[in-house]
Amino acid sequence: MISIVTLTTDFGTRDGFTAQMKGVILGIFPEARIVDVTHDIEPFSILEGALVLNGIRKYFPPTAVHVGVIDPGVGSQRRGLAVRTRTGYYVGPDNGLFTFILNESADVEVREIRNPEFMLPEPYATFHGRDIFAPAAAHLSAGKMFESIGPVVEKPVTLTVPKPVRSASAIEGEAIYTDRFGNVTTNIPADLLDRTVREIRIAGTRIPRLSRYFAEVPFHEPVALINSFGLLEVAVNRGNASAELHIETGDKIRILW
Amino acid sequence: MISIVTLTTDFGTRDGFTAQMKGVILGIFPEARIVDVTHDIEPFSILEGALVLNGIRKYFPPTAVHVGVIDPGVGSQRRGLAVRTRTGYYVGPDNGLFTFILNESADVEVREIRNPEFMLPEPYATFHGRDIFAPAAAHLSAGKMFESIGPVVEKPVTLTVPKPVRSASAIEGEAIYTDRFGNVTTNIPADLLDRTVREIRIAGTRIPRLSRYFAEVPFHEPVALINSFGLLEVAVNRGNASAELHIETGDKIRILW
Amino acid sequence: MISIVTLTTDFGTRDGFTAQMKGVILGIFPEARIVDVTHDIEPFSILEGALVLNGIRKYFPPTAVHVGVIDPGVGSQRRGLAVRTRTGYYVGPDNGLFTFILNESADVEVREIRNPEFMLPEPYATFHGRDIFAPAAAHLSAGKMFESIGPVVEKPVTLTVPKPVRSASAIEGEAIYTDRFGNVTTNIPADLLDRTVREIRIAGTRIPRLSRYFAEVPFHEPVALINSFGLLEVAVNRGNASAELHIETGDKIRILW
Repeated sequence: MISIVTLTTDFGTRDGFTAQMKGVILGIFPEARIVDVTHDIEPFSILEGALVLNGIRKYFPPTAVHVGVIDPGVGSQRRGLAVRTRTGYYVGPDNGLFTFILNESADVEVREIRNPEFMLPEPYATFHGRDIFAPAAAHLSAGKMFESIGPVVEKPVTLTVPKPVRSASAIEGEAIYTDRFGNVTTNIPADLLDRTVREIRIAGTRIPRLSRYFAEVPFHEPVALINSFGLLEVAVNRGNASAELHIETGDKIRILW
Repeated sequence: MISIVTLTTDFGTRDGFTAQMKGVILGIFPEARIVDVTHDIEPFSILEGALVLNGIRKYFPPTAVHVGVIDPGVGSQRRGLAVRTRTGYYVGPDNGLFTFILNESADVEVREIRNPEFMLPEPYATFHGRDIFAPAAAHLSAGKMFESIGPVVEKPVTLTVPKPVRSASAIEGEAIYTDRFGNVTTNIPADLLDRTVREIRIAGTRIPRLSRYFAEVPFHEPVALINSFGLLEVAVNRGNASAELHIETGDKIRILW
Repeated sequence: MISIVTLTTDFGTRDGFTAQMKGVILGIFPEARIVDVTHDIEPFSILEGALVLNGIRKYFPPTAVHVGVIDPGVGSQRRGLAVRTRTGYYVGPDNGLFTFILNESADVEVREIRNPEFMLPEPYATFHGRDIFAPAAAHLSAGKMFESIGPVVEKPVTLTVPKPVRSASAIEGEAIYTDRFGNVTTNIPADLLDRTVREIRIAGTRIPRLSRYFAEVPFHEPVALINSFGLLEVAVNRGNASAELHIETGDKIRILW
């Protein structure tokens, strides 16, 4: 049995806060194998966190517990969630961070973290990552019964992410996320791109093919490829696609074949 | 038994140096569970390192060995220390890095690392992190006798950190550290703030309450909160408190209730 | 038995890609001890990756498997390699990343990764780090037979790195790498510097001695020291040696004694 706990946060790595979480986890469950996914999510970007969590999902065993803490609402009344799916467990705030997990997983059960046995005593109002989510994940990883963590949540919060539409001649999707480098992620997953692409159109730009990596095009040229989230991305090699190609979130993208 | 070794340094993560330390630790004690606290301490900032080490302390089991290497004096005659407390072991240079540990722990024993069995053979003059502190921590974590590491140190170096003064109507403290974002850490620990705060005054600025997180105040407004070191911090939401509020280290802060 | 797998990449730590690699490794071999060397190699800098891999080598046990993924040619026909030496195993692209390992190790055997049992099913054309190198490393670490990974490679790609020349009065070497801070690494290893240095000359600058660390010289003064790669480096304390001293890769350096 392998007991992986992964961490995805926007805390940065500078002040020791993520180490406090790790100390809590190992104190509760010394056998946990902790994997840092990233602590460099853009601060408060729930969507970026959701994309990263979705991207890593299928590469971990189904016993893994994934902790996500991008939590602008900490200290407010937002709930803390534990989610059980056939491909893994998820722990974090009820703010949309698990949107893709909830949309795409079968047999999902969502519960609110309420049982104090899954928390540190006297959790600090704004350090739920350390005082609630880390211990909850450690207890789940150690085998504590999922059903005992708290009541079922019927309607967890999800982000509204449009679905791509596929026709005989094209796929139509849209830009859903721009990262700090100006790379634009769309809502089109890799597995929809199963035919030879004739042209990609977005915001007045035409890209003649799907590339495999940035360096396939000259510097400052637009490029379309599958990114590490498993989604179609539009970028500019050594440039800023959002600024240079005037792409905004919500812009339509068409893949022609 | 869990055998945690944590690492807190100002080495950055770019050139593989911290990995050399980890290789040394695992080579000596394969069962060690290594936790990176941070390698992004501001270069040579002993005080920042001391604050981080103090902040993580209570979240790790007492068997943990915490290695700290912020070491501007490496290569000089400064001593290397091993510290045993009731809440953990500490290994690093004798330069004040363990100030808060030494001030606040009961039953502290401090020894100089002298026994070559706790070091790599022929330690390099300036890579003590790898050649002395990493192996010393690994040997301690593996159970080698603390008393055999070297002679007792009576007067380890400590930083001068003023203590806050509490009266019936107020707490008076001072600014002790400004980080690279301009956030100002004071010497007032969270557990002193056990009453309703009426006003916080520092450098001519009045802050009407203690917040739980930055986003409770509008952009560019001052905010006071408990930071991850467990200390009162004065910041500006999306701004630079030190520059915008003209706060300098040593400035007095008054909490009124 | 300790089963270390180290990771050295230019992927950054932001998008979860390195976590996907770790999930793959732990899924195949749960006992693997994964050590991040760095994910901050300058993008596409094979030489920087090669220097880091060489620098860490002797601090890990010989059973360690070191994965290096600085791979500008991914998706092209470049081969994937597994290398066995007396001091460790190496897995990564055949592009010169293992130059120093291949040049300096005795009893080296190099094989091409061809056996699909060492890969994920249907490896993605451009994510070899995750789909080929991570699983290959996990299988090797778990004890799968090295010889079964694929055919022997007679002529792996190596970078051309000039060798220093030692005479009775001097060592002559050259600048081989400039990092993003302008620090200049030369091809002169620490163990050649076994006599008292009288002067160091490079690009018209004369440095009167070998220092142990930057802070031994005043701000903005040139300094020569052994860096964490184990090589002689020329730097400027708090400055940019390459720009300020007009040093270019290929410039000669002379150590006089």
